[in-house]
Amino acid sequence: MAIKFLFNGNSSHVISAHDRGLQFGDGLFETIAIKNEFLLCWDEHIKRLQLGCSRLKIPMPSEETLTKEARSLISNVERGVLKLIVTRGEGGRGYALPLNAETTRLMSLYPWPEYSFGNPDNGIKVRLCNYRYGHNPALAGIKHLNRLEQVMARSEWSDTTIAEGIILDYEKNVIEGTMSNLFYIKNNTLYTPELFACGINGIIRQKVITLAAELNLEVRIDKISLQRLMDADEAFMCNSIIGIWPITLLGEKSLEIGEKTIRMKILLQKYSFISESQ
Amino acid sequence: MAIKFLFNGNSSHVISAHDRGLQFGDGLFETIAIKNEFLLCWDEHIKRLQLGCSRLKIPMPSEETLTKEARSLISNVERGVLKLIVTRGEGGRGYALPLNAETTRLMSLYPWPEYSFGNPDNGIKVRLCNYRYGHNPALAGIKHLNRLEQVMARSEWSDTTIAEGIILDYEKNVIEGTMSNLFYIKNNTLYTPELFACGINGIIRQKVITLAAELNLEVRIDKISLQRLMDADEAFMCNSIIGIWPITLLGEKSLEIGEKTIRMKILLQKYSFISESQ
Repeated sequence: MAIKFLFNGNSSHVISAHDRGLQFGDGLFETIAIKNEFLLCWDEHIKRLQLGCSRLKIPMPSEETLTKEARSLISNVERGVLKLIVTRGEGGRGYALPLNAETTRLMSLYPWPEYSFGNPDNGIKVRLCNYRYGHNPALAGIKHLNRLEQVMARSEWSDTTIAEGIILDYEKNVIEGTMSNLFYIKNNTLYTPELFACGINGIIRQKVITLAAELNLEVRIDKISLQRLMDADEAFMCNSIIGIWPITLLGEKSLEIGEKTIRMKILLQKYSFISESQ
Repeated sequence: MAIKFLFNGNSSHVISAHDRGLQFGDGLFETIAIKNEFLLCWDEHIKRLQLGCSRLKIPMPSEETLTKEARSLISNVERGVLKLIVTRGEGGRGYALPLNAETTRLMSLYPWPEYSFGNPDNGIKVRLCNYRYGHNPALAGIKHLNRLEQVMARSEWSDTTIAEGIILDYEKNVIEGTMSNLFYIKNNTLYTPELFACGINGIIRQKVITLAAELNLEVRIDKISLQRLMDADEAFMCNSIIGIWPITLLGEKSLEIGEKTIRMKILLQKYSFISESQ
């Protein structure tokens, strides 16, 4: 559970029951790693939030206000997680966009997560979920608050040795993990699923794609079948909190932690990703 | 905005920011018409809520508690709307189902809505939305809290003379209105879209299908193209609050209020739909 909350700048752990975030999931969120009082990849998170606000026609809160509030919440925090929720604000019973609604900003500070399955640097076990994503091009890519699909997929297992589950769409394309993006390497090419119809375009996913050139890896963003994934040389999951988790068990298939995955992990850590705007 | 709230049985208009209803849209809702201190179609709403809870693996709150709380909120209410939200309760940052979470019950009492476009008994104008539904068979039919698609479709118009918008899926099948189900009549058959991939199976939709036999109408639940809809003799929208609204303008096409629509409307009103459990 969160340690501290800021609701529209005030310390509060409750929100109005009229908020459209609750009523319809009418909002967006970002999950940001905190390291030594810095918000990692802050500019990138703000940029994705802006894109999401634009897609959902939600007025974007001022970046200055968000930065000020986030910094006030994380002062003296060495390691932690900031979850930022932005909703369309309060409204009535209907779906129509409310007139003069004030966008809600909810920031929650969480402790750094501990994992039940040991040190993920030694590789993680990943299962294949039965749940299939629907297709929704208009909402794909952005990190909106309609997350029942992830909840359903994550509800399939309680084995604490399994770190993550991979979700396919209903056309059987591999898409992502329940809380992370997926990459695999075959020969000298880095592959990751295209996210036009579903999935979230993660900040670390974007970083990994950009950094691939430094490792002389070609990048292919593509429709990916389970068969192609299972034929991978190396594979890893990534997100803003976990960084890179090498996969050593993918369904029934064992994988080695590959040299390219390790080099990408080191490269990602080398860049501190502390944005200038802080 | 709501007049009164009951949060887990207590008068409160705020909810915890930890609630998974806000965090992920992890819950369900029902919208119930109140008439002379009765909750119309209460048993049917409870039944759909049970189905939704079962699909989402949310423990269903006790029906007795829900009935008691709902009745306490609507005492002395001649005409109004009760919105009942059930969520998985409070949880942490992750998608995994929380252990020992207590299901949240939020009831809100709203005034009976007033409409900007005159008396809907005289027929309504309906537009065709540009927004296309995604396909999501695992979540189709139930009334869950992930409602960004309806919000996006409803955001397309602000012309107050337009009562409703019809949404197609991305394969161009006609599905429903933003807040209502759709029926049309051609010759002696009543048609309504199948809802296997998207859409909400409305309580009044179910009633209309059942009552069709009394009007000697054959019922066809089918994939419906825009062309077929446009070729209708009569058409109407329905939900628990509006009952039946005859359509007199469907996109660019004018329609007469048909005799079968009027007879269905009268038939629906004849049954008071006051469930025995009250």
